[in-house]
This record gives sequence, C-alpha cells and structure tokens, in this order.
Amino acid sequence: MSNDNRIEHDPLGPVSVPADRYYGAQTARALENFPISGIAINSMPFVIQALAHVKMAAAQANCDEGLLPIEKRDAIVLACQEVLAGKHDDEFLVDVFQGGAGTSTNMNMNEVLANRASELFGGARGEGRLVHPNDDVNRSQSTNDAYATAVRLSIIPASRNFRDALVALAATLNGKAEEFADIRKLGRTQLQDAVPMTLGQEFAAFATTILEDCDRLNETERLFLEVNLGGTAIGTGVAATPSYRALALENLSRNMQLPVVGSKDLLEASWDMGAFMLHMGLLKRIAAKLSKIANDFRLLSSGPRGGIGEIVLPALQPGSSLMPGKVNPVAAEALNQVCFFVYGMDTTVGMAAEAGQLQLNAMEPVIIFSIHNATELLRRAVLTFTKTCVAGVQANAARCESNLKNSTAFATELVTSIGYEAAAELVKERLAV
Amino acid sequence: MSNDNRIEHDPLGPVSVPADRYYGAQTARALENFPISGIAINSMPFVIQALAHVKMAAAQANCDEGLLPIEKRDAIVLACQEVLAGKHDDEFLVDVFQGGAGTSTNMNMNEVLANRASELFGGARGEGRLVHPNDDVNRSQSTNDAYATAVRLSIIPASRNFRDALVALAATLNGKAEEFADIRKLGRTQLQDAVPMTLGQEFAAFATTILEDCDRLNETERLFLEVNLGGTAIGTGVAATPSYRALALENLSRNMQLPVVGSKDLLEASWDMGAFMLHMGLLKRIAAKLSKIANDFRLLSSGPRGGIGEIVLPALQPGSSLMPGKVNPVAAEALNQVCFFVYGMDTTVGMAAEAGQLQLNAMEPVIIFSIHNATELLRRAVLTFTKTCVAGVQANAARCESNLKNSTAFATELVTSIGYEAAAELVKERLAV
Amino acid sequence: MSNDNRIEHDPLGPVSVPADRYYGAQTARALENFPISGIAINSMPFVIQALAHVKMAAAQANCDEGLLPIEKRDAIVLACQEVLAGKHDDEFLVDVFQGGAGTSTNMNMNEVLANRASELFGGARGEGRLVHPNDDVNRSQSTNDAYATAVRLSIIPASRNFRDALVALAATLNGKAEEFADIRKLGRTQLQDAVPMTLGQEFAAFATTILEDCDRLNETERLFLEVNLGGTAIGTGVAATPSYRALALENLSRNMQLPVVGSKDLLEASWDMGAFMLHMGLLKRIAAKLSKIANDFRLLSSGPRGGIGEIVLPALQPGSSLMPGKVNPVAAEALNQVCFFVYGMDTTVGMAAEAGQLQLNAMEPVIIFSIHNATELLRRAVLTFTKTCVAGVQANAARCESNLKNSTAFATELVTSIGYEAAAELVKERLAV
Amino acid sequence: MSNDNRIEHDPLGPVSVPADRYYGAQTARALENFPISGIAINSMPFVIQALAHVKMAAAQANCDEGLLPIEKRDAIVLACQEVLAGKHDDEFLVDVFQGGAGTSTNMNMNEVLANRASELFGGARGEGRLVHPNDDVNRSQSTNDAYATAVRLSIIPASRNFRDALVALAATLNGKAEEFADIRKLGRTQLQDAVPMTLGQEFAAFATTILEDCDRLNETERLFLEVNLGGTAIGTGVAATPSYRALALENLSRNMQLPVVGSKDLLEASWDMGAFMLHMGLLKRIAAKLSKIANDFRLLSSGPRGGIGEIVLPALQPGSSLMPGKVNPVAAEALNQVCFFVYGMDTTVGMAAEAGQLQLNAMEPVIIFSIHNATELLRRAVLTFTKTCVAGVQANAARCESNLKNSTAFATELVTSIGYEAAAELVKERLAV
Repeated sequence: MSNDNRIEHDPLGPVSVPADRYYGAQTARALENFPISGIAINSMPFVIQALAHVKMAAAQANCDEGLLPIEKRDAIVLACQEVLAGKHDDEFLVDVFQGGAGTSTNMNMNEVLANRASELFGGARGEGRLVHPNDDVNRSQSTNDAYATAVRLSIIPASRNFRDALVALAATLNGKAEEFADIRKLGRTQLQDAVPMTLGQEFAAFATTILEDCDRLNETERLFLEVNLGGTAIGTGVAATPSYRALALENLSRNMQLPVVGSKDLLEASWDMGAFMLHMGLLKRIAAKLSKIANDFRLLSSGPRGGIGEIVLPALQPGSSLMPGKVNPVAAEALNQVCFFVYGMDTTVGMAAEAGQLQLNAMEPVIIFSIHNATELLRRAVLTFTKTCVAGVQANAARCESNLKNSTAFATELVTSIGYEAAAELVKERLAV
Repeated sequence: MSNDNRIEHDPLGPVSVPADRYYGAQTARALENFPISGIAINSMPFVIQALAHVKMAAAQANCDEGLLPIEKRDAIVLACQEVLAGKHDDEFLVDVFQGGAGTSTNMNMNEVLANRASELFGGARGEGRLVHPNDDVNRSQSTNDAYATAVRLSIIPASRNFRDALVALAATLNGKAEEFADIRKLGRTQLQDAVPMTLGQEFAAFATTILEDCDRLNETERLFLEVNLGGTAIGTGVAATPSYRALALENLSRNMQLPVVGSKDLLEASWDMGAFMLHMGLLKRIAAKLSKIANDFRLLSSGPRGGIGEIVLPALQPGSSLMPGKVNPVAAEALNQVCFFVYGMDTTVGMAAEAGQLQLNAMEPVIIFSIHNATELLRRAVLTFTKTCVAGVQANAARCESNLKNSTAFATELVTSIGYEAAAELVKERLAV
Repeated sequence: MSNDNRIEHDPLGPVSVPADRYYGAQTARALENFPISGIAINSMPFVIQALAHVKMAAAQANCDEGLLPIEKRDAIVLACQEVLAGKHDDEFLVDVFQGGAGTSTNMNMNEVLANRASELFGGARGEGRLVHPNDDVNRSQSTNDAYATAVRLSIIPASRNFRDALVALAATLNGKAEEFADIRKLGRTQLQDAVPMTLGQEFAAFATTILEDCDRLNETERLFLEVNLGGTAIGTGVAATPSYRALALENLSRNMQLPVVGSKDLLEASWDMGAFMLHMGLLKRIAAKLSKIANDFRLLSSGPRGGIGEIVLPALQPGSSLMPGKVNPVAAEALNQVCFFVYGMDTTVGMAAEAGQLQLNAMEPVIIFSIHNATELLRRAVLTFTKTCVAGVQANAARCESNLKNSTAFATELVTSIGYEAAAELVKERLAV
Repeated sequence: MSNDNRIEHDPLGPVSVPADRYYGAQTARALENFPISGIAINSMPFVIQALAHVKMAAAQANCDEGLLPIEKRDAIVLACQEVLAGKHDDEFLVDVFQGGAGTSTNMNMNEVLANRASELFGGARGEGRLVHPNDDVNRSQSTNDAYATAVRLSIIPASRNFRDALVALAATLNGKAEEFADIRKLGRTQLQDAVPMTLGQEFAAFATTILEDCDRLNETERLFLEVNLGGTAIGTGVAATPSYRALALENLSRNMQLPVVGSKDLLEASWDMGAFMLHMGLLKRIAAKLSKIANDFRLLSSGPRGGIGEIVLPALQPGSSLMPGKVNPVAAEALNQVCFFVYGMDTTVGMAAEAGQLQLNAMEPVIIFSIHNATELLRRAVLTFTKTCVAGVQANAARCESNLKNSTAFATELVTSIGYEAAAELVKERLAV
C-alpha cells in the first residue's frame, strides 16, 4: 500500500490518496462520500473547462493584486491550460450527484491544479507541494462564487453546440420544404380534414419553429454571462478585494473571449437559480417542438395503407421481430423519448431551484447535471433524427393528391362567395355520397 | 355598522364579525388574510362533511370521558347533523388557499358549530355563546389531528363518486364492444399497419383498462381509513387521553359507517402525506388512460376522408367558425385537457408533499384542494365524454374493411408456415404494387 | 317555454336559446357540451377584451376591403366597445375547459356581437338578426387565427397587472432593506453558520430577484405581440386577402395601442405554443423565487425561541386551535402553496403544448386557462403577502446579534492572513468550548 | 475487414457485424440507429435476465408444442443460462433510448441466443447458424409480448433490491430512536415551537414512514406478475397458440420462482402502462419521504450555533473551500438531489405512458429506463446516506434541553385545566420577558 498511496491531511484528519493522482485528500473523500450515479463530473467537459478558466483568471488577478507570486501564477496558469487541453480529464472523478453545493468539484479542481502546478514548478505532489489548493489556487474565492461562475459559463458552449445541431436540422427541413414545394395536400386541424396546403409548407413550418428556438438560445446566453465571481462565500466578498474582483472578471472575459459581467447584487446572485430555470424551460420548449415534429412525422407516415401515408420515412431496421415487412418510425420514436426525458429534467431543475435556503442553493449540482444531460441528449437525438430520418424522407405525392381530392377541403373557399351555411350544406351532400 | 356586526375577541384582539353569521372571529380573520383564489372550502363538500363527523365523534367521546356535559354534546351533535345535511354550507367561506395547515378550516367549523350549538342550547351567537369553539368543540383536538383526519376521510366518498362515473364509462364502452364485436379491422402498432383484430376488441380493451382503475381506487381507500385522531398537535396526544382516542375512533367508525383505524405511529402520521401522493398518482394514471382513449378516439375518427375514419363520433356542434361542415372531436379534446390539468395537480401535490418540515406538513390544504379539484374535474369530464361521445359513437364498417383489405396484415399469419424472411418478401412485393 | 326561449338553427339542426340572451345557437350547444369546471371564460376578462379587439379590427378591415357595409361595421364596432366596457360580461359563459380549439369561445363572441350589433342596427336578436355571426362578424377569420391572436394579446395586460404587484413587493422589500441596513447578522450557507452580513442585504437580495423577473416579464411581452391574424384556418389565409390582413393588423395595433406584428410563417404560427411555454416557464421561475422567499421568511422567523428567530412576522391570526399563543407564518405558507400550484400549471401547459398535431394545437384553451389562472393566483398571493406580511415584518436585532456573536463566522476573515488550515484549527477550538 | 467482420442479411439488405460478436445484423443496425445516450441496455441487468427467462420459457413451450426440436431447445436453454450467469453482458449494447418499442432489445437477445445456441449446437455464428433468431428463438413471440413481459418482471428484483436498502435505513433509524429515547426536546409545527416530544420519537417516525413504503413496494409487485406473454403482436395471439401460452407462462413461473399470471385482456395489456405509472408514483412518494427526512436532518443539525443544532451529523469532508472549520450536511444534500431527479423520472414516465397509440405504447423503453435509473439511484443514495450519515448521527442533548426549556411548549398542557384563552395569556407574558 505504501508505495501506491500517499497520505494527506485535511482538517478532518489523514486521507489516503493514490500516489499517481493529481487530485488530493478532499477529492478522495468525495469519491468515498458520493458513490451515487457512477457518472463523473468529467462527463460535463464544459464545466471542467469553465472552472479551469475561473482558476486561471483568479490566479492572474491574485498575482496582480500581490497575493500570489508570479512563479506560482505561471505554474497555475500552465496547469489550467493543460486542463483546458483535456490532458487531465481522468482526474475529475467526483460524482455528478454530490452534496456540498459544488465544493467537491471545486476542490477536485483546486487539488489537481495545485499538484500539477507544483510539479511544473519543480515540486512534488501531495503535502510537500509548492502550491496550496486553498491558499493559492482557491485564493480570493469560495466554491460559492468560483463554482457558481463556472457552471453558468459552461452553459454557453453547450448551448451553442446544441444550436448547431438545431440549425442543421432546420436546414435539412428547409431542403425538404423546397423539394416538396409543389406537392399539394390536405391540411388538417384536430385531425380532421380542413383546407388545402402544400407539403412544402408543412416542412417549412417545422424549420421555422426550430430556427425561432435558435434565436431564443442566442438570447438566453446573456443570462449566463452575468456571474458572481468575487462575491466569495455569500456575496459580501469576504476574503477578496473589489480590485481583485474587477481584475478577475476582466481576465475571465479576455481569456474566454466572452463579455462576462459581474452581478450587481452579489448576495442575490449567490443563491438565485433563475437563469437555469429559464434555460431549462427553453430546453423543454424545444423538446415540445421536437416531439410535435416527431409526432407529425409518425402521423404523416402512418399506414402505409391504413393511415395517412403522405410521407415515407427511411427504413432503418426491420420493424418487428414477428411481423414481416413492417417498418417503424424508430428515429422519430427515439426523439420523442428523449423529449420526454428532457421534460423530466425540467421537473428536477424546478424542484432543485425552489430548494435554495438563505444565502445559497445547495442543489446547484443536480441542476447543472440535469441541464447538461438534457442538452447533450437532445443534441445527439437531433443529429440522429436529422441524418437518419429527415434527410431521407420522401413524399408519397399520389397519396397526398388522393387524400386531398377525396376530402371536402374545397368548401371553405366557397364561404366568401356563397356564405357559411350554404357551403355547409354542400359538404353534407358530398360526405353523404 | 353596529347593528350589522358583532365584536369578538381572540388572543390577538377584537374582530368584527357579521352579526348574522355563525362563524366567528378567526374565520373573519382568515377571510381577510386569504383573499387568494375566491374558491371557498365549501366547494369541497366532502371535506366539510368529514370534518363535521370528526367534531361529532369527538364531542361524543369527550362526553363519555366526562370532559363535556351531555347537553353541550347533544347541542354539538345536533349542529353537526345540520352541517351534514348541508344547512350551513354558506358559512364555510375560508379560501382553499390558506396558510396555517388547515387551522382556519378547523376554526371555521369550530366556530359555526359553537355558535349554532349555543343557539340550539338556547344561547346567543358570539362571545356570549354557551359553547366554546376551542374548549368545547375542539376539545381534545388540534387542527393537526382533527383536520388531518377529516381530509383523509373526505377522499373516500369523492373517490367512490368518481368511480361510479368510471364504471358507467366502462359499461358504455363494453356495450359498444358488443355492438362492434363482428367488425374486423386493422390493428396498428406504432401507427403502422400490423395484424387483424375486431373493433369490439378495441373497445373492450378501453373498458378493461378503466375497470382496472376502479379496482385500484377501491384498494386505495384503505390508506385513507387510517387516521391520526387523538394525536393532537404533533402525535404525542398532548391535551387528549388514550381512552378518549379509542372512543373517538369508535364513534367515527360507527357514525360514518367506515372501518376507521388509528395510525400506529401518531408522530409519523402527523406529517406524512404519503397516502395523498399515491392517490394523486392513481388519478394521474387514470388521466393517462383517459387521455390515451381520447387520443385513440381522435385517431380512429380522423378524416373523415383523409385519415383513419374507422369510427364516427356524434356531431356535437359545428366544428369551425370558418370551415363549413367540419365536425370536430370536441368531447375527446375536452377530456384530454382535463387530463393534462390532472397531471398538473399531481405536480402540485408532489411539491407540497415534499415540503413537510419536522412535526407537520403545512402545505396540506393545497394537497387537499388539488386532489378534490382533480377528482371532480375528471368525474365531470368522464360523465360528459360518456354521454355525449362514447354512447353515440358509430362504426364505419366499410372503412374498417377496406383499411384491413388494403394492408399487408395477412403476412404475420404466414410466419409460422413459411418463416419470417419469406413472409417479409411477400410483403415487399405487395406494397410495391 | 315559447316566450322564454327562441329557436335558432345551425348546420346540425334547431337549438333552443334563452330569449333574453345575446349569445346564440352555438354558445347554447357549447354550454351543454362542456359542463366541466363551472368556470366560465368571463373569468378571464383579458381574453374577452382581446377577442373583442380582434373582432373590431377585423370589422374595420373588412369594411375597408369592401366586404362589410359601413353600417354593419359601425354596429359591430359599437357592440365591441360595449364588450370592452364590460357591459356583456355575463354573456360569455362557455366553460374554460372546452374542446374545439377555442371555437366555442370565438362563436360565443361572434354571436353576442352579431345579436347586439343587430339591435344597435335596429334589428332583432336570433335568426332574424341583421348581422351574421359567421359571414359578418367572423368575416375573413377562423377561430384558428382570431382566437389565437386574442389569447396571445390577452397575456400582455395580465402580465403587466402581475408585474405591478411584483414591483410593489420589491418596493416593500427594499423599504425593509433600508430599515434593516445596520443590523448585522449571521449569513448561512447550507443552513450552516457562514460569514457576517446585514439583514438589510438579505432583504435587498429578495427585492433584486423580484425586480429581475419584472424585467423578464417585460421582455416576454414581445413574444405575444406576434400574431397570426389573417392566417385563417391553417395559416394559408384561405377566405381572407393579404390586404385585409395588413389592415386588420394595423387596426389592432392602433386600437389596442400595442405594436402588434404579423407572424412571418403563418402555418407555423397556427400550431406553435412556444410563447406560452416560455411565459409559463417564467411564471414558474417567479414562483420558485417567491417560494424561496417565503421559505426564508419562515426559516428566519422560526422559533420564536427554538429556531433562528431573527425576524418577527406580523401575527395575523391565532396559530393553533389547541396550542395557546402560537403564531404561524400563515401568509408565507399561503404563498408557498400558490407557488406549488403554479408549478402544476406549468406541467399542464407543457403537456398541452406537446399535444399539437399537424396544422393546429387543439389544446390551446387549457393552456390559456392555466396561464391566466396561475397569473391571477400569483398576483393576489403577492399582493396579500406584501400587505399582510412583508410590510409588517420586524427585525429581532438582539437575536441577530447573539446568533452572530456565538458563531465562528469570524474565521473566514482570518484566512487571508493566517491561511485556511490555521483558521480551521481556531474554529475547532472555539466550537469545543 | 474480411477477417474482422462478417456480413449478414436482413430484409433491408446486407449488414456488417464484428466477427467476434454473438449479436447480429439487427443489433448492428440498432447500434448505428441510436447513438443517443451511450448507456447500453446491459446497464439494466434485471431486464437482460428477465428477457433471457422469457426466451427460455418460450423455447421450452415451443418444444412441448412440437414447434422446436429438442436439440434446439436445449441449446437455446443453455445459451439463456449463460446469459443469466452474466457471461454475455458485453453483447447487450443497444442504447437505452431506442425507437421501435423494444424491438432492438428483443432482437439483440434473439441474435445473441441464436448465435450462441448455434455454437453450443456445433454450428457457426452469423448466417450459417443452426438456430434462427426469429423463427426459433423468437418463435411464437412478438417484441410486444416478449419484451413487454420481460420488462415487467425486471421490476420485481430491482424493487426488492431497493427495498433491502430501505429496510436497512429503517433499522438504522430505529437504532437511533432507541439511543435517543430519553432525550426530551421541542416539537415544532410550521417551524414554530409547539409541544414537547423526544428525539427518539422523531427518529422512530422516520423509520415508520420508510417501513410503510417497504410494504407498498411489496404490494406493487403483484402488478408486475401479470404479463401478456402469448399475446404476440397486439394481444390477439397471432402466430401463437393458446396451449403454447399456457405452457410458456407455466415455465416462466417455475423457472423464475415467481407466481406469474396471464393478463385477462391481452389487447389492453399490450398497450397499458398503468403498472409502471403506479410504481413510478410510489418511487416518487419514497423520494418525497426521503427528501423530507434529509431536510429534517439539515434543519435539526443547522447551526451549529446559529440554528437548531439538536443533532450533529458526521463530518464527512471539510465543508468549504474558503470557510475554515465549516462542516456541511453533504450526505443529506446528495440524497435530496437524487430525490429531485426521481421526481423528474416520474414526469418522464407520465409523459411516455400517456403517449400510447392504438394497440401499443412505443415509448416503453424510456419508461423502463427511467424506472430502473430512478430505482438504482435511490438505492445507492439510501445506502450511502444510511452508512455515512444516519449511522453516525449524534444528539446534542444539551441543546435539545435548552431549546425546550426556553420555549412556551408547556402551555398546551395547561389548556385542559385553565382553558385556551387563559393559557394564551400566559404565553404572551412569557414571550414578553
């Protein structure tokens, strides 16, 4: 054991840490304390990266403030850059379900950076390290501002990533809208035959609704650019100076190339989960739209004989283990299920956001996990649906035509000339045939 | 003012009460304190009745224990019987959204009964009354056991009432199942043509699923028969005796003709909302089934020409302000919407049930309101759907026949003889035509 | 009967209508078809007003287009103004739970306006009327654009109304923040003693978080200014002309004094519920914040002896039917419960929004009801909480002081001088005393 | 490539499959079709095992019916036993988010068993295999009965597993209840000082509420013992015989040692998700109770100086990266977050269950995943909470005593002797000191 592990001490006593790890005592404790989901925080790379950015900006500011020697700063910055480059992904192992309001995630980062910086500095890992996780890396910070800032900023790249997938879906839908521009068909309200339209219009509307949400995702970014860095434990800035705060924010903006701004009321910013709720609500709205589109794909392709049958989805796999020749709308169904899951994540976020107490909301970790989980599931489901289903959808023009011709969709156009009641009589006669 | 109002005093000071009211100071305060929804507790008659039963059982037990004179008991019992007969419905006016964990509801009842009993006793209303709301009517009780017991018991008649509506729906569906027993049609999975079945089987399955939930409603009653009466404030029974408790439960059982039993752990029973969660979950399950049935009605009646069109729903009203002759499945749509509302009520109950703290859950009033609201909306929606839609649904046998004949539903029957792959080839050929 | 009722005919046959009613056959049918909640659409005055505005704008545009004689237009406009003035509130009686995607609400308005306009015109009510509900009042419209436009616009005044209540709450909180500016107290994270702050900061943060949501409510208005008027049945504008559409939008903007704009993709706008989802999500976020504030009020006032006890809430009513002298935070508890109810409404809206099919979402009525219901409940709960609780809250300065002094909140300030580990040792010693 | 992959053909054409895999063409397609969550179905071992049991029971029944040669049966049974022993876990790789209503899971199993049985039989993998995935392994079955049966049965061992963790939690709580039996303390309702109780009673109530849910879990098993095996595609039993069905159910019961029964209405059983909803609702109820317990632990341990401070939780890790000596209730907070996640899973299941259409609910896979996910997270969180928190909780008896003594909890006991109003006066006097 002695050659595989090192012993570290924290305020609660000695802790055994694997000798080859950059993480330290508190991470080791957290790994024992939270054997919950088996999903590590490195499953959320945008969180790891944003937290490294926060540490880098803080180190730079602390140095400028005279609170951190230049050599330590340089070592910490270098270590941060390695983390940003993904070199230490397998060090961030704390479970996504964790108590402590993110303290374990923050300390995991503090410890990895301290030990790695110490090495870069020519020192050792463990207790003999030359850089201290709390007094150097975490200098002028608390989890309640460092972690809180990082998780907010992590939403932005995740959201952009997802938006790219949505834009591609909309483009594919618009391509189909052009392809189907001249196919006339029956419009339906309440599943009842209504009035004529084109299949192109139907697909263009799908694209429109998705693009609207790309705009909304853009707008929501703003909410996450406002951060409480410098507020430390509860927003009063204890153990940090206002000049540090200004510098840290400036560094963060510059390093991340994002117009980060400081919260005006740091006490409120320390406990408020409002931005997450709105963003999660937007993800739910996107899920609602995607699910509606999936439902429409399934309705329009229903049959092929005993349903609407106006579009034909690509056959991705045999549809049944028993029924020969059956082909099912599996891509749409997978999308639906992801959407239902996203609704679930909104419930979770809503519960957790309400559970804040006094100067903090200790449930932030599950909020962050739920949002990143929902975003990534949606992203992959949208990419898959676009590629395996939308790109290959075909019109059944003959069916579109016959469904329209057999219906009474003509009648509404007569209303302006013969009036509602006379037109209604005509419909009755036609349907009686 | 002086001739229209009387002045009463409570520990917080004087309160003006309308002279012609049986309710008193604390109800008057509650009316001022909770101008929230405008929906009074008398919108939940089963709650009022159950609470009157609790008061009656308590008065009888207190008398037997020597804590209440026989004449007071008789007056209180008489007043309770008037409440049970609905004679004082317009006295129970506190808002369903109320703080205080039901104290205002409990005091509303205590005051009405005290003043009415005083009158029956030959006394006055108001401060000169001969029966005291707290020391007599509420004797040996706290809101936390009297109200808690009443609201649990109130679920049982509400649930039975609703079950009657479900049984009627199932009977109507079964009647249709018999009527449609010989109509062969296409079965569909994932909206794709599958294998043959009868329309009768489809309707019988609807009836089956509803009757299963009638059984579940029956089983859930048991959870509400277990009550914490006698536990008083927090379950320790302070200000009540064990012998009183046994008598009160016995009286309650006998008077309500229900096998009421006492909770074994009165402290747990004082804060646990578990029974409400399971019951609300069952209501949500019923809503899911009803919504699915409504959806199927809408799918099966879609068209009439450009959809499935296998059943025809009664035309209840012109379907469109613009499109002549359109008839919409409005009864099914109304049912869907009520079901979505019921899902909302489950969310509310789930939030409120989690919000208990230490020895009490102060959110019980919104739980009770949500459940009664959901139950009554479902009940009315089911009655309406049964009468205006299910009872009049007709089969379009010709459409059933042609949808089946045009499909490849025959293929599955060949699997056992020629194998899955050969049968799949046959289907391909048929669809290529 | 003959002198109390008149007979009207619609495409489905004769209907009996109370003779003294302005509404007509289709409203009468709807009243029979939807005996669900007993809550009439006139419980949502902003919907009634916005729909009257749509009808007025359409009549003006139809007249300009030569589709409606000037006299009819003037009569319809006059009738609309009467509706706006609240003169016909008791005519709008259709249940808020209704199938038909709002058709019954739209026809209720069409009929009331047609009959009233006929009278103003010198004609009769009923079938002999001089103005036709469909061919005149509903001219160039479908429920799917007229109702859809009105319900979107109805959100704006409701939201402003609610915002006023929030602004008043924030002002009251800020007043208290000033009053409590010098009261030092213990800040707490995760319910554990953390670092010093002032009670003023705590209240100012409450105000900040509420004012942020006032900004968000402002921003969301924009989503409801985009309407699909002119799209008619499914967005293709059948039975309406583009020039009518432009005029109608112009009139609507001018009459309502709102910068209404037309949707770019009318087909998408016909079925998309996205704006409602975001707005409902915002209401849920506001509910989360209000519930958190209510929870903090309850925590901070807990005790008075065996809890935190740093603030004292106004005593609104005796707290218990049994425990003498107990005073409960009833206003906060009522607010919590309304917030949980609002969460439920978000569930309902989320379900309904996902249930759109093809060219329409037939579940719009329950969405509208849920949002107006949630908004009005929140508004009243906020007004009540502000007036009965926040305005009268008092600090227990002595308790604030002793809680702070007894704690180890001093230690964090030492971190920058003596380091994290040495400071931790000091805390250990202090707590061991 | 040729030596690493084999080519197989299915009705849609050729598919490349890794040569060393037991799974075949349709699994390979599914792996390409559903790159969604990265979570494979082998993360739900109870599902894999139950499906293997279904296949074994079916093979035995098919053999008895003369539809499968004895040698094939024996080979399939042997292969099933290997799966049950966990030997092929890494073959079950289809994503838990999948379209097709479980067809890919079913075919994954059919293919693994067919290829493995072929080998055991002396044959090859791939197209030359001696056992056919559809015609032999899936004989007399459809996904819609085989998968549906397996997933229901998979709930039972998962539920028992979880129950064991709850029983252990309750035992630990009861141990603490005994330990704390003599510690008198203040009972609180609505966070306000109420009446005396013991800390032992408080912990015993936690145990009671958990044990009640163990009973409920027991009762719910019954719902999952009713299965639709033999119903095949839609419940009509096409391609299977009634005698096969009886045998298959008998085999399944015997092999699994569970009293499995056949559904009475196989059509209903093919689409109904009712049992899942009730079970998920029960998991939500358990989550509500656990969250309430976690909340109470956090409230009771709040402070240590500026809160209630009546219990002391084990210090698991330093509580803050900044605040020295702070110890947080991290185990309780982790439990809370898991509970909120479980609420989310209930939302997902509720949405998916409502989305059934006609003869099937294609959303069953997300229901199964959500339930197993919720169950396993809860199980691990409960084990962790029990071990790291409950087992080590200590009473602060001095604080319990002083909180009680300082309060006015004595007053309620006076009500029976001096009356409510006089007692209230006494309390006022005492608090004024």
